[in-house]
Amino acid sequence: MASRKTGEFERIATFFAPLAAGFPGALGLTDDAALIRPAEGCEIVVTTDTMVAGVHYVGDEPADLVAQKLLRVNLSDLAAMGARPVAYTLNIALPSALEDDWLERFTAGLAADQRRFGIALAGGDSVSTPGPVTLTITAFGEVAAGAALRRSGARAGDLVYVSGTIGDGALGLKVLRGHVAGLAQTHKDSLIERYRRPQPRTACGPRLAGLAHAAIDVSDGLAADLGHIAEVSGVAAVIEAVSVPLSTAAAAALELDPDLRDAILGGGDDYELLFAAPPGAGGRIASLAAELGLALTAIGRIENGRGVRVVDAGGAAIALRAAGYTHR
Amino acid sequence: MASRKTGEFERIATFFAPLAAGFPGALGLTDDAALIRPAEGCEIVVTTDTMVAGVHYVGDEPADLVAQKLLRVNLSDLAAMGARPVAYTLNIALPSALEDDWLERFTAGLAADQRRFGIALAGGDSVSTPGPVTLTITAFGEVAAGAALRRSGARAGDLVYVSGTIGDGALGLKVLRGHVAGLAQTHKDSLIERYRRPQPRTACGPRLAGLAHAAIDVSDGLAADLGHIAEVSGVAAVIEAVSVPLSTAAAAALELDPDLRDAILGGGDDYELLFAAPPGAGGRIASLAAELGLALTAIGRIENGRGVRVVDAGGAAIALRAAGYTHR
Repeated sequence: MASRKTGEFERIATFFAPLAAGFPGALGLTDDAALIRPAEGCEIVVTTDTMVAGVHYVGDEPADLVAQKLLRVNLSDLAAMGARPVAYTLNIALPSALEDDWLERFTAGLAADQRRFGIALAGGDSVSTPGPVTLTITAFGEVAAGAALRRSGARAGDLVYVSGTIGDGALGLKVLRGHVAGLAQTHKDSLIERYRRPQPRTACGPRLAGLAHAAIDVSDGLAADLGHIAEVSGVAAVIEAVSVPLSTAAAAALELDPDLRDAILGGGDDYELLFAAPPGAGGRIASLAAELGLALTAIGRIENGRGVRVVDAGGAAIALRAAGYTHR
Repeated sequence: MASRKTGEFERIATFFAPLAAGFPGALGLTDDAALIRPAEGCEIVVTTDTMVAGVHYVGDEPADLVAQKLLRVNLSDLAAMGARPVAYTLNIALPSALEDDWLERFTAGLAADQRRFGIALAGGDSVSTPGPVTLTITAFGEVAAGAALRRSGARAGDLVYVSGTIGDGALGLKVLRGHVAGLAQTHKDSLIERYRRPQPRTACGPRLAGLAHAAIDVSDGLAADLGHIAEVSGVAAVIEAVSVPLSTAAAAALELDPDLRDAILGGGDDYELLFAAPPGAGGRIASLAAELGLALTAIGRIENGRGVRVVDAGGAAIALRAAGYTHR
């Protein structure tokens, strides 16, 4: 289509109002605010993330992927709290040089994910900036009052579980940066896709209420995020490296370069659920995994003490070179 | 204090966690999301605004004023919906050159307004940017389910009211830009203060539920915002220019330069409430004004038809040179 740029009111009507059509509380984006009414007995769970072009993504990614990553990162936070997605608001600061083509692709990405995850746009703000594209999504979920999963609550004796596979996000970023040599293209593509388009565990999260003692999503890295649970819960945690589930692509990369283990265990961007549950919950967790078609794998345990240890098959401690993740 | 810069976790603990201390649903800012539980029978009202340094403010304003303007703009939107403030989230993208001094003053401004308006921080995100300071606040209020004020609902025969005084915001910006000559310094200071630190009508808004048929806050300009009500309500509106309440400072400026009338009627940034109410509500509106110590002035009427007319004392139409406001 021809490149063109539109004013705010037209932009809202053209690009954003269709995203809000399915959510009555958005009031057609024509009012000063939106209305969110939680279901009877439920409370609202709120999470928000900001992404800046050139900081949180390379800057030349397709706009639909940028949109979906930002939305999914927020959906992953809702899942970690055990909440069902309801709606989101979007704040975009766009350089004036940006064409409507970008916005069209950006909103197409949102539209596809709205259908996929059962969520709708409730409101937002659209402004211009002399700086880079700056995007904020604030997502709203609902959970039975008092039933939200927390980072606190892990107890000595709990087992530590993760959903899906770990390390794909960090390896995908390494592939994008040309740091993984010799890997088959199909594996590279798969890792890049995992980095660019995480799969928030929105179906699993709400089902963990009543099963898990504590939960978080893996965004800072497996070791660091388990550290958050351990710190807030006042316990220690142990990860058995050999138990951490890897995708075929990640396993192939690790075989080529064993040094990638640190990126797998310490890198971020997996957006899997990491949770602590009592041993007696194992049967129900296995049933849930089967029902959802999603691996839920025990990878370690909670103990008395402080901190996170990663151990090898023989129980010896493994020192990670990049155990944390520096927030940008 | 010495200039220094801190990492994200320390920054959250130092600057933001204290702002969240009064709100249990913030979970100490240590979880993936916040919890907001509306009071029995209430729903949540959500509004959000983004400000970019150099676009929405000059860029060298004191950081506490920047914080308060952004928060108050959102509180004004809640008031226009008839909602009582509950909590807010904050997303900040900061240039790496910015010192902690700025953040300290910024959060001090928020802390003061939190006490003033009875609202607390629930969560947020803090990132770095190679661009200008970019700030988003998303504010949450509550209102009895179904009782939110809307822009729609104005009917022929309604009177049009505004709170406080009109035009101070737009004149304050003109003063800042050196476009108002000969005005006494005390008037200049008063107008600048009104531009920089609007007074959201948070006490009045919730009291208009059941009185007003439609409401909005004056952010785009009196004529434009009444136009929004008229358009969404499917009616016409008339503003009697002579009835529009002016502050002493605005009246003095208008006397010096009658051409400022267009800025007063057409400029934005007043953040007063503009609402339509049936003639029979006049007595209760007068009582409310007396109780709140806030002027609520009838400035016109709703008619059948379309559009907004501004008329002089004799009823003749006045053409505004700047009837609208271009969103940035």
